[in-house]
Amino acid sequence: MPSSLVADAVASRLDDFLRRTRVDSARFGADAALFLDAAEQTLRGGKRLRARFCHAGWAAVARDGNTDATEPDALWSLCAALEIFQSAALVHDDLIDNSDTRRGRAAAHRALEQRHRAAGWTGDAEAFGRSSAVLLGDLLIAWSDDLLEEALVAHPQATAVRAEYARMRRDVTVGQMLDITEESAWSVSPPSQLLERALRVASLKSARYSVEEPLALGALLAGADAGQLTALRDFGHPVGMAFQMRDDVLGVFGDPAVTGKPAGDDLREGKRTALIALVREQLPDADRDRLDSRLGDPELSPAEVESLQALIRRTSALERIEGMITDYTRQAEAALRSPGLDPAAVEDLRSLALAAVTRAA
Amino acid sequence: MPSSLVADAVASRLDDFLRRTRVDSARFGADAALFLDAAEQTLRGGKRLRARFCHAGWAAVARDGNTDATEPDALWSLCAALEIFQSAALVHDDLIDNSDTRRGRAAAHRALEQRHRAAGWTGDAEAFGRSSAVLLGDLLIAWSDDLLEEALVAHPQATAVRAEYARMRRDVTVGQMLDITEESAWSVSPPSQLLERALRVASLKSARYSVEEPLALGALLAGADAGQLTALRDFGHPVGMAFQMRDDVLGVFGDPAVTGKPAGDDLREGKRTALIALVREQLPDADRDRLDSRLGDPELSPAEVESLQALIRRTSALERIEGMITDYTRQAEAALRSPGLDPAAVEDLRSLALAAVTRAA
Repeated sequence: MPSSLVADAVASRLDDFLRRTRVDSARFGADAALFLDAAEQTLRGGKRLRARFCHAGWAAVARDGNTDATEPDALWSLCAALEIFQSAALVHDDLIDNSDTRRGRAAAHRALEQRHRAAGWTGDAEAFGRSSAVLLGDLLIAWSDDLLEEALVAHPQATAVRAEYARMRRDVTVGQMLDITEESAWSVSPPSQLLERALRVASLKSARYSVEEPLALGALLAGADAGQLTALRDFGHPVGMAFQMRDDVLGVFGDPAVTGKPAGDDLREGKRTALIALVREQLPDADRDRLDSRLGDPELSPAEVESLQALIRRTSALERIEGMITDYTRQAEAALRSPGLDPAAVEDLRSLALAAVTRAA
Repeated sequence: MPSSLVADAVASRLDDFLRRTRVDSARFGADAALFLDAAEQTLRGGKRLRARFCHAGWAAVARDGNTDATEPDALWSLCAALEIFQSAALVHDDLIDNSDTRRGRAAAHRALEQRHRAAGWTGDAEAFGRSSAVLLGDLLIAWSDDLLEEALVAHPQATAVRAEYARMRRDVTVGQMLDITEESAWSVSPPSQLLERALRVASLKSARYSVEEPLALGALLAGADAGQLTALRDFGHPVGMAFQMRDDVLGVFGDPAVTGKPAGDDLREGKRTALIALVREQLPDADRDRLDSRLGDPELSPAEVESLQALIRRTSALERIEGMITDYTRQAEAALRSPGLDPAAVEDLRSLALAAVTRAA
């Protein structure tokens, strides 16, 4: 199925949900509309990656031996729930990372700050933006559960899907916690552990949350058996790892004209990726100290970014990461050879995987 | 049932959940233990108000005509889920309100900040505390859902209980949003609307979230019929309103030796309560300007607090609030005369209500 059709179906389900929520929220008065507007903004755009994997997981199972199966209503509610949860995660992430923009618009805390100023309210507009973004994320989490329940009420696979969804929420939250901890704790961690720690965060936040668990959710909704589920997980996890490794490379070497982010964005943010862990292992002491002292400085000049890029290129870290991406992609490909998955859906999975690991943005 | 027994049963269910979560989280490595410790700290102490109302709602229905009914396992999981959700709300509230302490200990964001310093990590400890508290609240919300699912899996009342729980989450989050909005927006709102706006926040955050919805959840778990549910809601909402009005009075006039909070704490925080709305309606312009200019100043001196207290006493607002508390209490009492509720449980509800509205702390 073309991914734009998935994106359209999810957008339509989200619109429908927002329409009903606005009617239901009228009793809260006019101020509540401000938050509904902000919530709606966070749901616009995005690659709908999780919805697409969820749909693909459903199709791989539901269309096995029944190639004409059409998507049930519950699938679109589940896909929409995943995308609302992702919006919640992004609202809280942007707050944590002090990111001013998201998907080409003001990040939620900045948008709410602007609403405070525009309304001529009293008090600290920036503090209001940050506080209300905490709550906006909480509201989006609640909405995500509401849509999940719409999908699952009286559904025969409800218990299995709920358990997987709960696991997904814990994994991404713990992954994000370990990620921000790593940005503080790396300097007192044994250098030999840094790669392992970076890979653990990548597994939780990317491989499981963004790929494996959406795939498994779609498959479980379709009533996957143990063999189908294992094959999809064995495909999804390495795809997600390769996706994250590609992200790490683009975060340092990506073309700003294509990524839409400043060159070397990850260097300014001080992200402790697998790439950086490998670089640190190989650098002589003086160069490592230089890297450590510059990484995470939001004021890095373009020349300093270029100099750090050159430092990284002097190691073999980039080749090793590309090698890991190749290995992960092979693992994923091997998992697709498992029987019991619909061949057309397998082709879709293959192109989703290819797009994820070879992308330039 | 003595409320200490409810508190003990909930504490034991929480301990059991935490024990299992620690085993399950071992795969996340040692850093994850930091967050588990912080989460565990937030679950200690507290009045367990929501668990007590949930238990009372269950008892009023389950023991009607069956006075020996013992609490099912699902009830304790539901009560524990409510208390974990309350911890999540407090973690985010304390962050939003910049509160340094909670239940006599460091607030979660301050405790996490201290862990950062103690570990000798790099970077901004205060920012780490604030960021990780956002995620800690998210993790506690996820745990709350996990315990809810433990209560409801294969339970005949699962759909009704889930819908009420979802409503509760939306109500308290929207209520909290409107509350922080009011602290900014009151100056541009028509003065005639301030009481209505304060009462709406009290209804969402206190009457519904803290009393009516926990009662309804317990009753629904016991399979309440429409009449029983209406009676309990008609009791719970005014009790919660009276509870909040008492809180507003204590926030301005409470005895620090009894409340454990500084005198006039709500004045320093600038809370826009029903009491303050009534005061503003009655003050002459000059006095109202003085109130407006001092309210919300965290540096208010004890003498300034006393002067504002005297200003408030010169109006009839305090008498009107006490009158509202009496009216709410009578409404609640009348709802208890409805048939179909277990008489012993009704006695428990009466004492819970009395304790809530006559308390001094």
